[in-house]
Amino acid sequence: MIKVAVLVGSLQEKSFNKMLAKNLEEVAPEGVEFHYIDLNLPLFNQDLEANYPPEAQRAKDIIEAADGVLFVTPEYNRSVSGVLKNAIDWMSRPWGKNSFAGKPAGIVGATISSVGTAVAQADLRHIVVYLGVKLLGQPEVYVANAHSVFNESGRVDEATREHLTGYMNDLTEWIKNEE
Amino acid sequence: MIKVAVLVGSLQEKSFNKMLAKNLEEVAPEGVEFHYIDLNLPLFNQDLEANYPPEAQRAKDIIEAADGVLFVTPEYNRSVSGVLKNAIDWMSRPWGKNSFAGKPAGIVGATISSVGTAVAQADLRHIVVYLGVKLLGQPEVYVANAHSVFNESGRVDEATREHLTGYMNDLTEWIKNEE
Amino acid sequence: MIKVAVLVGSLQEKSFNKMLAKNLEEVAPEGVEFHYIDLNLPLFNQDLEANYPPEAQRAKDIIEAADGVLFVTPEYNRSVSGVLKNAIDWMSRPWGKNSFAGKPAGIVGATISSVGTAVAQADLRHIVVYLGVKLLGQPEVYVANAHSVFNESGRVDEATREHLTGYMNDLTEWIKNEE
Amino acid sequence: MIKVAVLVGSLQEKSFNKMLAKNLEEVAPEGVEFHYIDLNLPLFNQDLEANYPPEAQRAKDIIEAADGVLFVTPEYNRSVSGVLKNAIDWMSRPWGKNSFAGKPAGIVGATISSVGTAVAQADLRHIVVYLGVKLLGQPEVYVANAHSVFNESGRVDEATREHLTGYMNDLTEWIKNEE
Repeated sequence: MIKVAVLVGSLQEKSFNKMLAKNLEEVAPEGVEFHYIDLNLPLFNQDLEANYPPEAQRAKDIIEAADGVLFVTPEYNRSVSGVLKNAIDWMSRPWGKNSFAGKPAGIVGATISSVGTAVAQADLRHIVVYLGVKLLGQPEVYVANAHSVFNESGRVDEATREHLTGYMNDLTEWIKNEE
Repeated sequence: MIKVAVLVGSLQEKSFNKMLAKNLEEVAPEGVEFHYIDLNLPLFNQDLEANYPPEAQRAKDIIEAADGVLFVTPEYNRSVSGVLKNAIDWMSRPWGKNSFAGKPAGIVGATISSVGTAVAQADLRHIVVYLGVKLLGQPEVYVANAHSVFNESGRVDEATREHLTGYMNDLTEWIKNEE
Repeated sequence: MIKVAVLVGSLQEKSFNKMLAKNLEEVAPEGVEFHYIDLNLPLFNQDLEANYPPEAQRAKDIIEAADGVLFVTPEYNRSVSGVLKNAIDWMSRPWGKNSFAGKPAGIVGATISSVGTAVAQADLRHIVVYLGVKLLGQPEVYVANAHSVFNESGRVDEATREHLTGYMNDLTEWIKNEE
Repeated sequence: MIKVAVLVGSLQEKSFNKMLAKNLEEVAPEGVEFHYIDLNLPLFNQDLEANYPPEAQRAKDIIEAADGVLFVTPEYNRSVSGVLKNAIDWMSRPWGKNSFAGKPAGIVGATISSVGTAVAQADLRHIVVYLGVKLLGQPEVYVANAHSVFNESGRVDEATREHLTGYMNDLTEWIKNEE
């Protein structure tokens, strides 16, 4: 079994990034399990570290128990969402207990705009590499124009599905080899 | 009077960035008023936009009434804090009602590390320029090794105070000219 | 007359970014003049500053005589081209004689990929803001899938032409107001 | 033997980054060989790919024969130098023959300023991860205030030497494990 901790950077109920994660889960190779992190956490505040919020601790536990990490990021104002960055800030703490260290990981994203979250992903790359993640660089997954890529049931179109299938194969290999 | 909306990206009680903001306020030219935004906001969720959270609306109102904006950013994991990005995400919304558009602005930051928040500031630059802010590029304020720069009363050392004084003069001119 | 110094970040003869610059020049408001910088410069080397290369000096002169600057950037490896960054390095020097300081400026870009040079533009934003450029943030110009946007004569399609026309109006206003 | 291809992003004769590379070479574990790439290359131009410049091909050959890559970057205008980016652009080409793919790599940098090349390194991170490099995230090497760190013979001070020794041990392990 390959356990993948999944962080989806949007809290919107009908988020295209949540749909993207579901689509990736469906096309993942057998034996791959998605463990979703709840990003509905308090705002990070170093003063709270002494009494670590239990929901933040649970998120850390999921990542630490996982074989790899998948970041599914929207692009808000040409960068990662505050929601996602806030979760990363919690999970990197307290000092010396960064849960991401050494984990193989991948980054993908979806957006209704044409840019496909490329800038958010670039910012996220330098953040998570700093945190010691072993980051898969290629292939990339930029789902642009989400309104036309996802149908009403939240399924991606055929070409995207094929691309996502290849991505999950590569990410799974990456996690197996880098773990 | 020059009203400056101030966003401090840390919720920590004894935050060096809060201290930095206070020091900047003290050395600001006469007539400059700091209006602090409370960043203790809900996590951004587009579904909540229909009933905009009143604390987020208050933050937007302060920015819209201000002549300029000052971002005071820590560096968490080599980027802006989730706390600050979350606030920016709220204030840029809803679509078409971005409160930052056209505002003259500056970016400064403090940290206990040696890097001085330079990477956080670089990420923040491209974010706020996207949001239509008229951004002062020079001079820069990178307060590194904060433990030795601030004394027990939260005052910066003499050399830093002089640099901050020059910065506030330049930022005030910038706001007057660009408004 | 409004003089715009134009830096196109590709040396390729049939560069889509050269074509993009030409299209922008065509739709610019009356009175706007494009002054192209030749980016075919030596590699930057601080040891050469004592005898500043004449071609680099000519480039600096064009920028200093201009009312504004337009950066037209390809995206090579998810950032600005080395060619463009090398030119910027020359023109920012020698110390204290940065030719960009205070210039109103805009950034656009074209690429055959789907991402539209968005990451290159984000990197370029924080670079040129550091150099004291007054950067127009909105609107953005991301010309993606260039093979289908430009025809054989190097003309963009109608929708893009309209977008470029609006952009040149806004950039011209920006230059007039910010100069 | 562990062969490390080394790219130093400055052409200056007495470059602090060249000195940094030499210091790293001296403290490297036994069996580690540094193979320096000459970055004095033509400016990248896709039209030249059909007749690949021999000096660019030689650089590609060194990287392809190496077990790992070390990027030693100055910070010019808060990003990587045009010189270094130009070399990366050559070595990533032609399409499908990116020489960096799959190589374990590290990034370090030196500068006379206080920021320690942190922003240049952040930009470089997202570039080389895109190119499929397996990037060591921790520890980081930011040599700031180079004038006081290096002595007249180009040797770093004792504390820095110790940090560099640890870094070379970690990078060597990384290359052995990731290759």
